[in-house]
Amino acid sequence: MAILEKINSPQDVKSLNIDEMNDLSQDIRDAILKRVNTIGGHLGPDLGIVEATIALHYVFNSPEDKFVFDVSHQVYPHKMITGRKEGFTDPEEYSNISGYFNPEESEHDPFVIGHTSTSISLATGLAKARDLKGEKYNIVALIGDGSLSGGEAFEGFNNASVLDSNFIAIINDNEMSIAENQGGLYKNLEELRKTNGKCENNFFKTFGFEYYYVEEGNNIEALIEAFKKVKDTNHPTVIHIHTLKGKGFQPAVDNKEIYHWQLPGFLDPEKNNNSVETYDSITTDYILKKREKDNTVIAISPATPGAYGFTKEFRNKLGKNYTDVGIAEEHAVAYASGLAKNGAKPILAVLSSFIQRTYDQLSQDLALNNSPATLLIYWGAISPADSTHLCVFDIPLISNIPNIVYLAPTTKEEYLKMLDWSVEQNKYPVAIRVPAGELISTGIEDTTDYSILNKFEVSEQGEKVAILGLGNFFHLAKEVKQELKAKLNINSTLINPKFITGIDKELLENLKKNHNLVITLEDGVINGGFGEKISRFYGNSTMKVLNFGAKKEFTDRIPIEQLYERYHLTKDLIVKDIEKNL
Amino acid sequence: MAILEKINSPQDVKSLNIDEMNDLSQDIRDAILKRVNTIGGHLGPDLGIVEATIALHYVFNSPEDKFVFDVSHQVYPHKMITGRKEGFTDPEEYSNISGYFNPEESEHDPFVIGHTSTSISLATGLAKARDLKGEKYNIVALIGDGSLSGGEAFEGFNNASVLDSNFIAIINDNEMSIAENQGGLYKNLEELRKTNGKCENNFFKTFGFEYYYVEEGNNIEALIEAFKKVKDTNHPTVIHIHTLKGKGFQPAVDNKEIYHWQLPGFLDPEKNNNSVETYDSITTDYILKKREKDNTVIAISPATPGAYGFTKEFRNKLGKNYTDVGIAEEHAVAYASGLAKNGAKPILAVLSSFIQRTYDQLSQDLALNNSPATLLIYWGAISPADSTHLCVFDIPLISNIPNIVYLAPTTKEEYLKMLDWSVEQNKYPVAIRVPAGELISTGIEDTTDYSILNKFEVSEQGEKVAILGLGNFFHLAKEVKQELKAKLNINSTLINPKFITGIDKELLENLKKNHNLVITLEDGVINGGFGEKISRFYGNSTMKVLNFGAKKEFTDRIPIEQLYERYHLTKDLIVKDIEKNL
Repeated sequence: MAILEKINSPQDVKSLNIDEMNDLSQDIRDAILKRVNTIGGHLGPDLGIVEATIALHYVFNSPEDKFVFDVSHQVYPHKMITGRKEGFTDPEEYSNISGYFNPEESEHDPFVIGHTSTSISLATGLAKARDLKGEKYNIVALIGDGSLSGGEAFEGFNNASVLDSNFIAIINDNEMSIAENQGGLYKNLEELRKTNGKCENNFFKTFGFEYYYVEEGNNIEALIEAFKKVKDTNHPTVIHIHTLKGKGFQPAVDNKEIYHWQLPGFLDPEKNNNSVETYDSITTDYILKKREKDNTVIAISPATPGAYGFTKEFRNKLGKNYTDVGIAEEHAVAYASGLAKNGAKPILAVLSSFIQRTYDQLSQDLALNNSPATLLIYWGAISPADSTHLCVFDIPLISNIPNIVYLAPTTKEEYLKMLDWSVEQNKYPVAIRVPAGELISTGIEDTTDYSILNKFEVSEQGEKVAILGLGNFFHLAKEVKQELKAKLNINSTLINPKFITGIDKELLENLKKNHNLVITLEDGVINGGFGEKISRFYGNSTMKVLNFGAKKEFTDRIPIEQLYERYHLTKDLIVKDIEKNL
Repeated sequence: MAILEKINSPQDVKSLNIDEMNDLSQDIRDAILKRVNTIGGHLGPDLGIVEATIALHYVFNSPEDKFVFDVSHQVYPHKMITGRKEGFTDPEEYSNISGYFNPEESEHDPFVIGHTSTSISLATGLAKARDLKGEKYNIVALIGDGSLSGGEAFEGFNNASVLDSNFIAIINDNEMSIAENQGGLYKNLEELRKTNGKCENNFFKTFGFEYYYVEEGNNIEALIEAFKKVKDTNHPTVIHIHTLKGKGFQPAVDNKEIYHWQLPGFLDPEKNNNSVETYDSITTDYILKKREKDNTVIAISPATPGAYGFTKEFRNKLGKNYTDVGIAEEHAVAYASGLAKNGAKPILAVLSSFIQRTYDQLSQDLALNNSPATLLIYWGAISPADSTHLCVFDIPLISNIPNIVYLAPTTKEEYLKMLDWSVEQNKYPVAIRVPAGELISTGIEDTTDYSILNKFEVSEQGEKVAILGLGNFFHLAKEVKQELKAKLNINSTLINPKFITGIDKELLENLKKNHNLVITLEDGVINGGFGEKISRFYGNSTMKVLNFGAKKEFTDRIPIEQLYERYHLTKDLIVKDIEKNL
């Protein structure tokens, strides 16, 4: 860490010679490996962008010149150079520096960024404001590692290309998305690489960008030369740099997908060969078995197969019955709708945070057309995630769209039954909120007929208080029931709603007979969610209702216990609130 | 109508010779003009696509071969050929045939389509399902008239281009979006037109599409020849046809933007020269005046300037302080965020239905970054619109995102005060739901300080019943108040909430003293909306709450009176409901 120790701002990079910069690269790589091994994070993309980041800070003058790093998959070296190296060298400081672009940490980060494909448009806004104010400096967007295929990036390129002022887009072409790159655009990048940027077809030139290619995207000298060429230009430019994802750590070079992101402890050779059943594993097992019987079953992932156990082996087994659409969630939903309309059985897997990219496709392409596709929404839960990757908004997002049936299973058996019902039916678009956390199995087959919509299940009949525990929080509801019995001697009613998109009016009406308080628990933001529908239903009655769930806010790496405390999502706090309202 | 009379299905087109097909073109154009002059609708794009539609049906075999018409701006000729000509020739039948693709009308329309840029992805799904089932036929997507620039189309091209089977995209290049085309992509189309499709830069070839150019896009013979060439091919193909928007009606050729869409009566030479003040006119007046004082004020439109009075004159006056981003709503929001972050004052105008395309940009690019941009949401209201263009979902969409302040003015004075507050402040992203309908002016300046968030206004203090009339429905709330007095002698409290994104807890708490029923009125879908938050607030009290608004459903051209009746949104029905619950 001899060199890195001396780097406290980009200014310190400018005084280094090439050898020193290469040494700095090594220091940065060592720090990345240690940090990721300790707290997890993005590995391959950060290892690949080290030299380019050093060269950027050598040539440009941040923060006067403004950098926008797409999706923040490749922001660690930038953070180390811009006064935050302790977040990578001092284990005590690791968790004080986020893994994403963050203006609260540094003036060198103009935006909070964590979703993909946004950099070009955000940077176009910065550039236009600069021009309106009559200022002069460089606006540099860095995009790559799969983010190019998102529609927002394209909309950005279309508009950035007609700016009549300085705008520099650096395309970090590491030959990968999160998994393999997908689509015609990436074939064009391949052709550009093979021809040293000289082939006839050039995606970027079609928009009118001036274009430069740098084959040696991990060579600091070559990068400095290229960046100098475009610095202070008065028109939109693209620099396409060819980098090596995972560079400096051979396993990450050999297996780019696995090492895109890593959990703590990956440097430990002892393999975590877990054969425990999970919601991921029962999903892939289900799909493979279903596919054997039905050649129209097709699994779809928007570039994040690893997030839900769609392993290479699984994908290979499915063959033509698997599509990775790349980072292109909007396409994924419309594509699934088209598949379903033409008689296939699409199963689209997507994280709660990324389904946010598809509201209009869910509404117009899918729901309005009543296309019977199946959507599996993963990771929907309150969590200690970064503010960019919260998974608490999917219930308000999806459940207020007409026609979609959104289901919240609480066990393996319910989940599999719902999944199979969804795949086999052809009347509704169905989304299933795959339970978060460890698999829970009752061992008893679920025989519910899910074609009877909006039928809640009374799990245990009681009186006075009814607890509606949606999805993940059904198990919290059980605890609350026990606590109510123990503490207040109330034999409450426990209800598993199962359906997020509609309410069981008959059941709710019946509760009025011998209950005077209904509580709802949902593992997501309350606003616009499930509980408020229950409050509305009882609005004209004397039934009291308390809704529990997350507050409408962007939380950022808050420990989950703290969030549960804040939102009164522990059995003790809930029972206290119940006591107050009896 | 000699030829059109004989056309009852695509089969009938196949037996025509070229002269007869040209005569048919004339018949179709006459019918389009008469229908649009009677009930309004898309004019220019439909006039331009007549020959291509005839040629498509001559060469391909719909419905076995499947057509997907993007955004349905150019679907009238297709409808006339596919058994629905009475909807264009018989005034009695006009309103029975919608202006959009509609599977309920015909097996020749695979999807309901009304938003842009969806055709490529939907058609890719159809094609993949065909391949999985081992079937053989053509999948043809028709896209153009500005739709190319939407990100979803790009995501679609990226994926469609790597299908290893038949897929035909027809690019209807009429040199226009709704207003002018915007962005680098359209410069490439221009270059392709100028070089007869032979220039080096070719957007479509960069994806790997086989590419054909047809200069005479209104010449049936040339089109038939081109379509025959690609029919039954086993790989993805693009046919770029150059058509004349508005062809056959000279005013529509001369002024393509104005005649993109027309209201009834446009053939009447008497000009409707309306100088009445509207929310559109006070908005453009405000922006122009503000711009004179502040060069960082910038108006943004995603390709629909005409929808809110951003006329050519207005745009020209703004010059560099106006950006039409093309059909690219995602970019528009991120661009506005970038502008605001770098010190400019962006005002983005967008229709309620199209803000749906930007949920994730609102959340990640705008709200998470707390960028103080101003969004004007137009047309938000229950309406007799087509199911594709409903404007009732913006409240649940926007108001459940953290950090955004969503405002609902009820008069000119409130609107202008909110608008100016928003433009001048730099703490929050602000959206304003521009009132729908005629301008209402009190003549009294609004002196509210909107920096004090979530402060509802008691317009008239009363007792027993409190009526919260949000935005457009404040005036309905006034009527309800009067009716309550007249019919039940109740002197109710009238409240103008103004803020959609938060509740005035103090005011609501105070209502408990001498009220036992609160009703909420909102001009949009109830689910996930404003009223449910009020129901939740009172959940643990004895206050009764009734929420009024639209049901969660896709309505399709239902007369507004019927919708008001259905949702109990008339003063009589509301008072009846109140009476039942007192």
